[in-house]
Amino acid sequence: MTSERTSIGVDVGGTTIKCALVPADGRLLHHLSIPTEATSGPEVVLTRIAEAIASVVSKVSRSERAAITGVGIGVPGVINNRGEISYPPNFPGWGVVPVAKRIAPLIAGAFEERTPPIAVENDANVAALAEARAGAGLGAPHFLYVTLGTGVGGCVISDGRIWRGETGGAGEVGHLSVDLNGRPCNCGSRGCVEAYIGQRYMTAIAAERLRETSHSTLHAMLADGAELQPSLIDRAASAGDTFALEFLEEMGEILGAALASALNLLDYRLVVAGGGMSRSETLLRATERSMRARVLRSIGDAAELRPARFLNDAGVIGAAMLAR
Amino acid sequence: MTSERTSIGVDVGGTTIKCALVPADGRLLHHLSIPTEATSGPEVVLTRIAEAIASVVSKVSRSERAAITGVGIGVPGVINNRGEISYPPNFPGWGVVPVAKRIAPLIAGAFEERTPPIAVENDANVAALAEARAGAGLGAPHFLYVTLGTGVGGCVISDGRIWRGETGGAGEVGHLSVDLNGRPCNCGSRGCVEAYIGQRYMTAIAAERLRETSHSTLHAMLADGAELQPSLIDRAASAGDTFALEFLEEMGEILGAALASALNLLDYRLVVAGGGMSRSETLLRATERSMRARVLRSIGDAAELRPARFLNDAGVIGAAMLAR
Repeated sequence: MTSERTSIGVDVGGTTIKCALVPADGRLLHHLSIPTEATSGPEVVLTRIAEAIASVVSKVSRSERAAITGVGIGVPGVINNRGEISYPPNFPGWGVVPVAKRIAPLIAGAFEERTPPIAVENDANVAALAEARAGAGLGAPHFLYVTLGTGVGGCVISDGRIWRGETGGAGEVGHLSVDLNGRPCNCGSRGCVEAYIGQRYMTAIAAERLRETSHSTLHAMLADGAELQPSLIDRAASAGDTFALEFLEEMGEILGAALASALNLLDYRLVVAGGGMSRSETLLRATERSMRARVLRSIGDAAELRPARFLNDAGVIGAAMLAR
Repeated sequence: MTSERTSIGVDVGGTTIKCALVPADGRLLHHLSIPTEATSGPEVVLTRIAEAIASVVSKVSRSERAAITGVGIGVPGVINNRGEISYPPNFPGWGVVPVAKRIAPLIAGAFEERTPPIAVENDANVAALAEARAGAGLGAPHFLYVTLGTGVGGCVISDGRIWRGETGGAGEVGHLSVDLNGRPCNCGSRGCVEAYIGQRYMTAIAAERLRETSHSTLHAMLADGAELQPSLIDRAASAGDTFALEFLEEMGEILGAALASALNLLDYRLVVAGGGMSRSETLLRATERSMRARVLRSIGDAAELRPARFLNDAGVIGAAMLAR
C-alpha cells in the first residue's frame, strides 16, 4: 500500500516551535506546539526542533513515514547561500549555524530507513511560499509578499519560487524609504516604511496624535485598560471612530507609496499581505488605493493587494512546501 | 577555415540606428550609423534596421558570415513576453509591433543560407547586459543597472542575465519615490527619483535655485551662451563652483536614497551607473555616500556604485550580447 506524499513543516518562532505533517492540500496533521526555549541557546533549540519532528513522525504509520518527501524548517533570520543562519536577532548565543546539517543526525533515529532531505528558509519567505502554493497567490507566478507585524518584512516570489537575491535577504519591503528626510528607522536610515507601519512605530505615532486630540473613542478604550496597538486602532476604525479611520488611511497612503515603488522596480502587479494587520480592511483598502494611484501606467489598475489566506499556520504550511 | 563566433548588434535610437559586427571581446567591426527616420512610421524604421544589418553583413567574408550566431536589436521601449514592442514613446505611429518577426524576412536575402535568430530587448536592458558580459559588472552575477540620462531607467541583472519581471518592464529605478509628498513626476506619482535626476527635471530645479542666488559661475557661463543642463552643472562643479557642488551633492543624496531602497528590496550590493551623468564624479561620489549610509547593515559597506564601462557603444555591444 502506498500513502499520499506528504512533508513535515516546522515553524521556529521566538517563543514556540510548531510542527505538523502536511499533505498537498495544506491541511495540518498531528499538529503540535512546544516551547522554543530560545534563551537556553542553540543546542537546546536545535534539540527541541528535532524532538518536535520526531514526535510527529512517531504518530504516523510505517507506510505514511515512507511517503514523507522531506522536512522544511522556517526560522526567524536570513538563511545564506550555504544554508546557514547568521546571528538571528531574537536568539541569544547563536552565531553562524548550519541548521539542516545540525538537525539531520538528531532526527535520523526517528526515521527507519533514510532520513529525508531537510530544507531551511527564512520565516517570511516560507509564509510567502505557503501563499504561492496554496494561498492568495495560487495561480499567480509573480507577486510580492509583505508581512505586517512587529516588523514589516517580505518576500519576492518569481515563477512560483522564492527569489532570494544575492544572499537570501531579498524582499525587505520594510526598508523601502518613502521619505528620505522622514522618521528615523531602527535600521539607521530615515523614512523606511517600517518606521511608520511596524507595530511599535505605528503605536508610537498614534500615541503622539492622541495627545493632540480628545476626539476619539480610543481615549475611553485606553481608560478601560485596553492597550494601544495597531489592532485596537483597527477595532476603533471598524466601529466608526474618525480619528482611527483617518490614521489608518494615512498609514495606508504610506504603505501604498512603498509598494508602488516596489511594483515599479519589479514590474509586478500583485501584492499579498500577511501578518496581523493584514486583517485590517481599512488599512488594506487605503493601501491599495494609494498603490494604484502611484504605480506606472503600464501597471495601472492591474495593481492589486490581497490579504494572505494563512495567518498563524503560514509558517508550518510554507515550511512543509519547502520540502516538496 | 572557421572564423571566430560573432553576432550583430543593432541599437535603435530616436535619431540614429547604429549597427556593428561584435566578436566576444566587445570590439565593434564594420560599425555604421544611419538616420532612424522615426517620424516616417514603423514600415520605414523596420526597413532602415534591415538595411543597416544587410550593410554590415555585406562587408564580411563568406566564412565570417557563417560564423554569425545571431542578430540582437535594442529598442527604446518595453518588449513584452511575446517579443512585441508596445507603443514606444518616441516612435509615432507604432502600435504593438513584433519586431523580430517583421525584421526576419527583410534580412533573409543578406544571409546566403539560413537567417540567424533575432533577439529584441529594451535599450536599458541591453546596455546592462553589455556591462554584465564585458563591462563594469563583469564577474558580478547580480547587480542593478541605472541609466542617468533624459530619463532615469534601469535593469535588474540576476545570475548574469536580464531579470524581466512580469512583462519585461523590471528595473524602473526612476520611479522609486523618495518622498511620497515630493515633486510631481510625469508618471502621475510624486517624489520619483526621475522627478529630480531626469535631465529636464534636474535642469528645472537648478534654474529655480539659480534665480535665488547670484553666487555661482554658472551665471557667467549662461551669459556666455552655454545651455543650462546637468553636464554644464557638472563642469562648474569640477571647476570648484560651490553652488554646483552642493547642488549635485543634493541630487546624489536623493539618488542614493532610491538606490538604497532598491538594494534592500533586491538584497543586492552593486549598482552600475550608465548614461551621460554617470561621468559626473561629484554626483557619483555623493550618491554612493548616501546609498551606503542608508542600506541595511547586512549590506553595509559592501554597497558599491560603479560607473559603466560603455557609454555610447553600450547599445550596440549589449544588443550583440543578446544574440549569443
